Amino acid sequence: MCRFLIFKGKEPLRLSHLLTRPAHSIINQSFDSRLRLDRRRPVNGDGFGVAYYPQDKELNDDGPCLFRAITPAWNNQNLETLAEKTKSELVFAHVRASTYGILSETNCHPFTYHSLCFMHNGGISNFAKIKRTLLNHIDDEYLNFLKGSTDSECAFALFLDTLKKLGHDPAAGQGNFGHSALREAMLRTIEMIKNWTKEASRDLAQVEPSLLNFAVTDGSSVVVSRYITSKTDEAASLHFSCGSRFVESSPGEYRVERLDRNQDVIMVASEPLTFERGDWTAVPTNSILTIKNQTILLHPIIDEYYQKDPLYLRNSALAESKGLMGSVPLANAVEKDVPPLEREGRSRPISAAAHLA
Amino acid sequence: MCRFLIFKGKEPLRLSHLLTRPAHSIINQSFDSRLRLDRRRPVNGDGFGVAYYPQDKELNDDGPCLFRAITPAWNNQNLETLAEKTKSELVFAHVRASTYGILSETNCHPFTYHSLCFMHNGGISNFAKIKRTLLNHIDDEYLNFLKGSTDSECAFALFLDTLKKLGHDPAAGQGNFGHSALREAMLRTIEMIKNWTKEASRDLAQVEPSLLNFAVTDGSSVVVSRYITSKTDEAASLHFSCGSRFVESSPGEYRVERLDRNQDVIMVASEPLTFERGDWTAVPTNSILTIKNQTILLHPIIDEYYQKDPLYLRNSALAESKGLMGSVPLANAVEKDVPPLEREGRSRPISAAAHLA
Amino acid sequence: MCRFLIFKGKEPLRLSHLLTRPAHSIINQSFDSRLRLDRRRPVNGDGFGVAYYPQDKELNDDGPCLFRAITPAWNNQNLETLAEKTKSELVFAHVRASTYGILSETNCHPFTYHSLCFMHNGGISNFAKIKRTLLNHIDDEYLNFLKGSTDSECAFALFLDTLKKLGHDPAAGQGNFGHSALREAMLRTIEMIKNWTKEASRDLAQVEPSLLNFAVTDGSSVVVSRYITSKTDEAASLHFSCGSRFVESSPGEYRVERLDRNQDVIMVASEPLTFERGDWTAVPTNSILTIKNQTILLHPIIDEYYQKDPLYLRNSALAESKGLMGSVPLANAVEKDVPPLEREGRSRPISAAAHLA
Amino acid sequence: MCRFLIFKGKEPLRLSHLLTRPAHSIINQSFDSRLRLDRRRPVNGDGFGVAYYPQDKELNDDGPCLFRAITPAWNNQNLETLAEKTKSELVFAHVRASTYGILSETNCHPFTYHSLCFMHNGGISNFAKIKRTLLNHIDDEYLNFLKGSTDSECAFALFLDTLKKLGHDPAAGQGNFGHSALREAMLRTIEMIKNWTKEASRDLAQVEPSLLNFAVTDGSSVVVSRYITSKTDEAASLHFSCGSRFVESSPGEYRVERLDRNQDVIMVASEPLTFERGDWTAVPTNSILTIKNQTILLHPIIDEYYQKDPLYLRNSALAESKGLMGSVPLANAVEKDVPPLEREGRSRPISAAAHLA
Repeated sequence: MCRFLIFKGKEPLRLSHLLTRPAHSIINQSFDSRLRLDRRRPVNGDGFGVAYYPQDKELNDDGPCLFRAITPAWNNQNLETLAEKTKSELVFAHVRASTYGILSETNCHPFTYHSLCFMHNGGISNFAKIKRTLLNHIDDEYLNFLKGSTDSECAFALFLDTLKKLGHDPAAGQGNFGHSALREAMLRTIEMIKNWTKEASRDLAQVEPSLLNFAVTDGSSVVVSRYITSKTDEAASLHFSCGSRFVESSPGEYRVERLDRNQDVIMVASEPLTFERGDWTAVPTNSILTIKNQTILLHPIIDEYYQKDPLYLRNSALAESKGLMGSVPLANAVEKDVPPLEREGRSRPISAAAHLA
Repeated sequence: MCRFLIFKGKEPLRLSHLLTRPAHSIINQSFDSRLRLDRRRPVNGDGFGVAYYPQDKELNDDGPCLFRAITPAWNNQNLETLAEKTKSELVFAHVRASTYGILSETNCHPFTYHSLCFMHNGGISNFAKIKRTLLNHIDDEYLNFLKGSTDSECAFALFLDTLKKLGHDPAAGQGNFGHSALREAMLRTIEMIKNWTKEASRDLAQVEPSLLNFAVTDGSSVVVSRYITSKTDEAASLHFSCGSRFVESSPGEYRVERLDRNQDVIMVASEPLTFERGDWTAVPTNSILTIKNQTILLHPIIDEYYQKDPLYLRNSALAESKGLMGSVPLANAVEKDVPPLEREGRSRPISAAAHLA
Repeated sequence: MCRFLIFKGKEPLRLSHLLTRPAHSIINQSFDSRLRLDRRRPVNGDGFGVAYYPQDKELNDDGPCLFRAITPAWNNQNLETLAEKTKSELVFAHVRASTYGILSETNCHPFTYHSLCFMHNGGISNFAKIKRTLLNHIDDEYLNFLKGSTDSECAFALFLDTLKKLGHDPAAGQGNFGHSALREAMLRTIEMIKNWTKEASRDLAQVEPSLLNFAVTDGSSVVVSRYITSKTDEAASLHFSCGSRFVESSPGEYRVERLDRNQDVIMVASEPLTFERGDWTAVPTNSILTIKNQTILLHPIIDEYYQKDPLYLRNSALAESKGLMGSVPLANAVEKDVPPLEREGRSRPISAAAHLA
Repeated sequence: MCRFLIFKGKEPLRLSHLLTRPAHSIINQSFDSRLRLDRRRPVNGDGFGVAYYPQDKELNDDGPCLFRAITPAWNNQNLETLAEKTKSELVFAHVRASTYGILSETNCHPFTYHSLCFMHNGGISNFAKIKRTLLNHIDDEYLNFLKGSTDSECAFALFLDTLKKLGHDPAAGQGNFGHSALREAMLRTIEMIKNWTKEASRDLAQVEPSLLNFAVTDGSSVVVSRYITSKTDEAASLHFSCGSRFVESSPGEYRVERLDRNQDVIMVASEPLTFERGDWTAVPTNSILTIKNQTILLHPIIDEYYQKDPLYLRNSALAESKGLMGSVPLANAVEKDVPPLEREGRSRPISAAAHLA
């Protein structure tokens, strides 16, 4: 299982408040098994990575700063000091427990390509069977971009290729894509992986679903999916929180302060970062979350795995068995429980399938 | 908390049978929290080490082969292949969770000095206060031998110095010391640490006891202590097992086979290596175990922390809080339960204090 | 530039005599620039690897022991002790200066696949252009075997695939292939790479030749190529030496002792390992060397890049510019100068092209 | 041999302009032997470190950001991106070739203690003999601060202790010391090391001098020594440069632009960072350089090793043999050649000896 965290703030935040100081940060979660449901799974000691867009805009000419390591995150002196000495308005962080791919910095998330930054929590089912199809689909540029051996890096290469084919040069500068292009490319990426997996497993009696929680940013907009190729199983957990400030109430204990309806601070994470259950809202399974400026948008991904009934309870046994259900599942009550969430005017459901038509 | 394992066999054993294949090996224990009582403590991802004396005697001219790394043991490709491709009759292995000393190969156990090999599970209480006294006690040779910053490495330097002062050159070749010299030096080492700690904490209201489970070998004899500077607290766990063979009954499941009263296979470990409770015997707190050829000797360490009453139940809360109680404690029943244990003829209790008189 | 060394002995040799003790070992060469012609090139600090087949035959069930690291070879404590404490009859060692592929253990040579072990010195020209063709040529098994991003690892995957298509299962046990199958597979591998590169660069005005010094073993036979896709340029250097013993004449100074016509000790290396020029013979450019038991065979690779005239002097500027001419080039005088070389009975020139017909 | 570089600017500079982009940066010097006089010495592949004080003053509450690694600096992806994405007004950088102390992050320079940052180029002669004296001189706080095994880290601990005994708490915040306190502490540190070494080597026929080029900063003032315990040998090289801007004239080629007498940019380095000889001035042997705001001060260290005659030519054979003469020595012409150097009003020579009276 992996864990990831996204921070997007109106003001830059010291990275240590996200990564090293909170008792429930993804790094502290990674070794503290009281916080884990998945006690039979390896801990997240298989490397980590953090990408942040520098506070000084002049330094944002070609993507984020990226720091990755294969030693455990909880005992990395470089990360410790870097987190204390750095502020950023946009941070992607990831701790890894290897599924595909051996321990190597090249296999650590996030992955970057010029201004774009990408990470994944989950796994592509039966990846060995569809790898060739994926590699043949993408342009040489992205084939040669690959440095490691993970399904996640291949998914990023596919995303880049898709963005290109949609008419957006992935090598373009920061903030040049717009949230809808990023979302479109991600929906198509998910759809292709879904279809290839289906094709590859046509003759198999039983296939495990793919768990496709992807996150991408161009340094400005952020798009995150919570998706599973199943109509009955629960996807890997994904939560978000927003408010006015992220404050330390007592040493190691943080909470999201909501002074008004502002969303100056937005966090999206595989597991809640604070112990305050009310701070966090679960992203519904098979939907896609967008951060546009400081506003959150949620769109369902309507395809054959979509459940129309909002009360349908998916089975979380699969995600739990893979250690992908972080913390006690929170209520799936996006619609009514989250006052600060400002829904986009006409965010009618987007059908991923429709896009490819 | 750390974990350690010692193997001494009449015949060489493939290291993978000790380190990587058993479901309950110290490496697999290190990330599988079902096997852990200490769920609030960091896992053992802070480096590991293995020292083995080569099967080919010609290669045993100056001590064991030592392999240490700061990446987690459970995902180290070099260890994986080395363990599969190496056999040895005498192996020391250690996984570390840092207490003193940051993550660095120099802080990983085992430590070696010519033919001698040493490791520690526990911690010296209030070490910062006695470090200077210890450094001033030892000769320049051992002062300059120190490479890291741990209490454990200092304890080894003190052991070397003590051995020297007892008339044995620590740089002597393999098997040149004899079990009684090694035991004597270890008892004196423990006594000095005990006295210095007492001295340093004289004015303190309450001092946490030191946990001094040390293991040393010269490539031939092995000496292991289970010791705590307290009359009421339990020491860090230590178990041993012996039999004719160490066999894999089903994949990942091992057991110690006892065909006769032979002790062709002896293991000493902070936690049982097999799931078979009957395979393992707890070493009594505040005693010292010796492996002489393929025979186990047990001597109590009789000083102010010794409990004469064999039925006295020490409090294991401290050791547990430090993650030093591996597995459910086994019966303290060395005397009657362990048929293959051949006690030495006249192993009358050795008083550590008496030795220094 | 990389460097590699192969040792094949009738008796096992302590690895330190090959790797760490000789003043002119590939590891010491890697930082001592007196020994380097290529002073404008980065030193070989980009990782290293050593594979050895264990002395104990029981441990040879599934290939060699492999130790790789990304820290510089000359300051690796694990390598230092491992080399002192290990003996082997068959050793492959490699130090790397990155050309393709970033610093990662997955990019370090040697590569292994069950009993097979492979390494490369040189580079495939214009690799980004032929990568897709290569990946599509090989079976899924070998596509999914790839873990890094180097041309060399792809060349090994192609070799495995070729061996399979020749009717030999690459997963077969040690010594099961025979030298001719290994040689055949290597010649075909070279030919395919040559043809694809030609194809890919058809429209380019000028293409740099590929330098294809490959080495492979199945734990028994060894096959090594010295090859360049050019009729006028010199290939990367490759030398061999054989004799009765490899002895240390004075500290750090070794020589190959020739007591009789025995070839009990055979070494093949990118650079001579001793300072004694007479100890080493250059493998002719565009030929393939085989070690069958303790006998060396040399076959020319006759194709469009073959030079019939034995006195033709190729231009070594290219290889030198890449740091691939180790040491002062030795005479190309295989035919007459090397008494202990026993040529195979009817080793008529093998045309790589012919093989594929 | 090590190399170090100090940058102090009125405006923050992107770290890549110092570390990774210049063809002659200390990192590029470390593998390009054309730039090295010391071709018999190992290259600087034994780790590196960079400390920078963050641009955002709020982040400067407890010292600099510190990034150290044991993989070669020239192939570290984290350093590559960090250098591109970070600006700072005050940078200390160091590449290491091990002399004392094995490869370990704890042995990499710079060392930090709260707001203080320290590095060393050279070596304390006969250090094993004076280590105990040094350790016994310093307070427990600094004894327990030590994490590695190098003479350099011990010298820093001695510096901290000396600062404390001069009445300045080393844990005080950034810029709280003032240049004179830092210089005074450094002069006393040098004097103590000098005296202890003398004492320890009294009975030795011949002792190699100690090379004590130390650099320290509190985030505001910078003090750097160039010192050797010899009246006739040359110290390790040390140069400085100052001007209005540090500009890239062509890719990889930098120069120091001097538009006026401003010293907006000050660099101090073991080797010149640009190929323009006129950009750099050698710091005279046995003197101490201070950066106070953006002004350079130079004071001789007048003791038994001082040479009054400004024309006396010291013998550079020792420093060269240790690889401590970076580049062709530049003229020792501080007095007349450096227009922008503004000497302090009454900087009369400071006798280190006098200070201790």
